[in-house]
Amino acid sequence: MPGRLILKPQEHRRIAAGHLWVFSNEVARVEGVADAGETVQVLSSRRELLGSAYYNPHTLIAARLYSRRDEALDVDFLGRRLEEALAVRRLACRGREAFRWVNSEGDGLPGLIADLYADVAVVQILTAGMERVRPLIVEQIERTLHPRAIYDRSDAAYRALEGLAPAEGPMRGEPPIPFEISLDGVRMRVDVVRGQKTGLFLDQAENRRRLQALLPPNARVLDCFCYIGTWGLAALAAGAREVTGIDMSAWALEQAEANARLNGWADRCRWVRGDVAEVLQAWAGGAAGGAAQSKFDVVILDPPAFAKSKKHVPAAERAYTAIAASAMRLVVPGGLLAACSCSQHIDAARFDQIIARAARDAQCRCRVLARLGHSPDHPAVPAMPETTYLKGLIVEVRKSGKEG
Amino acid sequence: MPGRLILKPQEHRRIAAGHLWVFSNEVARVEGVADAGETVQVLSSRRELLGSAYYNPHTLIAARLYSRRDEALDVDFLGRRLEEALAVRRLACRGREAFRWVNSEGDGLPGLIADLYADVAVVQILTAGMERVRPLIVEQIERTLHPRAIYDRSDAAYRALEGLAPAEGPMRGEPPIPFEISLDGVRMRVDVVRGQKTGLFLDQAENRRRLQALLPPNARVLDCFCYIGTWGLAALAAGAREVTGIDMSAWALEQAEANARLNGWADRCRWVRGDVAEVLQAWAGGAAGGAAQSKFDVVILDPPAFAKSKKHVPAAERAYTAIAASAMRLVVPGGLLAACSCSQHIDAARFDQIIARAARDAQCRCRVLARLGHSPDHPAVPAMPETTYLKGLIVEVRKSGKEG
Repeated sequence: MPGRLILKPQEHRRIAAGHLWVFSNEVARVEGVADAGETVQVLSSRRELLGSAYYNPHTLIAARLYSRRDEALDVDFLGRRLEEALAVRRLACRGREAFRWVNSEGDGLPGLIADLYADVAVVQILTAGMERVRPLIVEQIERTLHPRAIYDRSDAAYRALEGLAPAEGPMRGEPPIPFEISLDGVRMRVDVVRGQKTGLFLDQAENRRRLQALLPPNARVLDCFCYIGTWGLAALAAGAREVTGIDMSAWALEQAEANARLNGWADRCRWVRGDVAEVLQAWAGGAAGGAAQSKFDVVILDPPAFAKSKKHVPAAERAYTAIAASAMRLVVPGGLLAACSCSQHIDAARFDQIIARAARDAQCRCRVLARLGHSPDHPAVPAMPETTYLKGLIVEVRKSGKEG
Repeated sequence: MPGRLILKPQEHRRIAAGHLWVFSNEVARVEGVADAGETVQVLSSRRELLGSAYYNPHTLIAARLYSRRDEALDVDFLGRRLEEALAVRRLACRGREAFRWVNSEGDGLPGLIADLYADVAVVQILTAGMERVRPLIVEQIERTLHPRAIYDRSDAAYRALEGLAPAEGPMRGEPPIPFEISLDGVRMRVDVVRGQKTGLFLDQAENRRRLQALLPPNARVLDCFCYIGTWGLAALAAGAREVTGIDMSAWALEQAEANARLNGWADRCRWVRGDVAEVLQAWAGGAAGGAAQSKFDVVILDPPAFAKSKKHVPAAERAYTAIAASAMRLVVPGGLLAACSCSQHIDAARFDQIIARAARDAQCRCRVLARLGHSPDHPAVPAMPETTYLKGLIVEVRKSGKEG
């Protein structure tokens, strides 16, 4: 018999409407359970069943629902959810060798991430509730897909909030490091140990495809925050002439260079180590190591989250506006800017305003050609705005001012 | 020398930030101009130039900017804007035979719509400012693209607000009626005289393509508000097994049937005349003309705008929620719902809530696989939320309740 978490009056409403999180201040009392990660029945103040969740007494999110029914977080349940998530990817990720198999709340498995790179599965366990069933997760991943290796990348800072230490290493088998996969029409090396997150960023796959479809012929492309070259190389695969990538990380740029070589494109790529804001400002102002910087047909702006929390939003907006304005100044008339934000605290409407302000500052007119979002293997929950973090625009850029 | 429209103090801010509309209560005074449709310089209260606009003394939107410079709305200007808009489509609409060439504010030509169906241009002139330059528009469309015919469909109710009577008929040449084009991989008949808007709905082209990419094999598809069959036939082109379309209009269903025949798919289509809300409720309840209605792998919900103005939003939300809940009840577990809203007054965040409420009512879990928006030939202006009207979701639907 699982414990019971009883909500205060009225606090069942958001949950009944589809949200999966119970915040600690919404809890009236907890019966028959004490430890972080134990499962509970979630009940309204009138003791109506709202679903099954796992509990954590130490976190702001006191419980995360994994089901609307009264059921255990056991090996059968995990197996059903993993199969179901895989069925969605078989539909939505046809022809893709790398995709996210399990996307936490979006797949009814809060706190669990699993990415597949060909036959290697990389797992992130983010909560105490999921940590408790770690052996069952490994068992069911093994049973469902028999991957060559399962690797743990539970090194996200988030785990500290849940009272968990970072965990990293092989869970089953040994992944080759690095190894090659095909991504967006590009051969890419994945390093599941040293790469960011589980190795690279799969959530942008659909967005890269949309940029590929809009790419001007023979485009000169600037890829800001290029990491290991995913956007820029995807542009080359779609017919771009050359790519300039900028990133702070020497390791990432080495990987980008290796990836370019892997595809025979080394002579069409230039990798620049530096702070994107500074480099763009210098280039947009005209000085590039002494030589005048020519403009680009396409600029890609896919930075890490600037706003890590709500209080950082105003500063993040200013920083993003400045970078986007510099980027627009570097776009040829009629060229494209593909700009994204993965800050959960900046929603799509706000992101439009940031791009509008950048256009004002750069004296540009922008046409919105595409709104970008999550790739289909990163499903969100409609009732949980928190599960939609990635948004972006592809805009065509022209001068609006007197000089254009 | 054009007239001048001087704004009240502070009212230049929204305009300076990229918005193109001056509302009548923001105007301090107008100098040297009186008639609806005349062009004006727009000046801040300190007489700084904000741009060039056309004026209407009778409308809530007193002026619409067409340029940030001091320039005339003349034949050269129109020619440049038409060329520029066409260059964007040559990039963004490769391989498409039908697309929107000019999208009003989104293309820097407020009040002007021009759609191309193969070699026939269909025009909507929506404002007094554009009506004044009607002959120049026709001349420049002719000069830019030499279409076989230019047809006027300026019969939108909106014109009455601008003090204009409806206008409809050939502007140059005679379009064949109906004639065939290729759309989303489907042969379609377009009737530019009797069809809705300029003939059919081009803004969903990219969204239809995205549904095609997610379509389960051999899908049974339900196309609600099917009009002349665009969504349903696009699904058949992508491998669906059969389509059921529902619409109120007998004329639209005749066209849908003719379009199905044109592609050799008549025996895979069923066209049902009726009120979608009533039909869905009856089918979801189990009664379908006496026989039990089987479920669908994919349901498409692309209704006309339910909320024509802000005051209609609450009723529209209730109506949409009810239809979406019925639609979800008709989706097989693991099937898809593609749901859109073209109501300008319901934004994307609000639309998510509607889908969340429908899921609650139908006891379903939904995974958001794709966020839908405008096709790239319907560009929006980042600084003008009013120019983003179309939003939608493709969700995967499963039962969440006890019975599922």
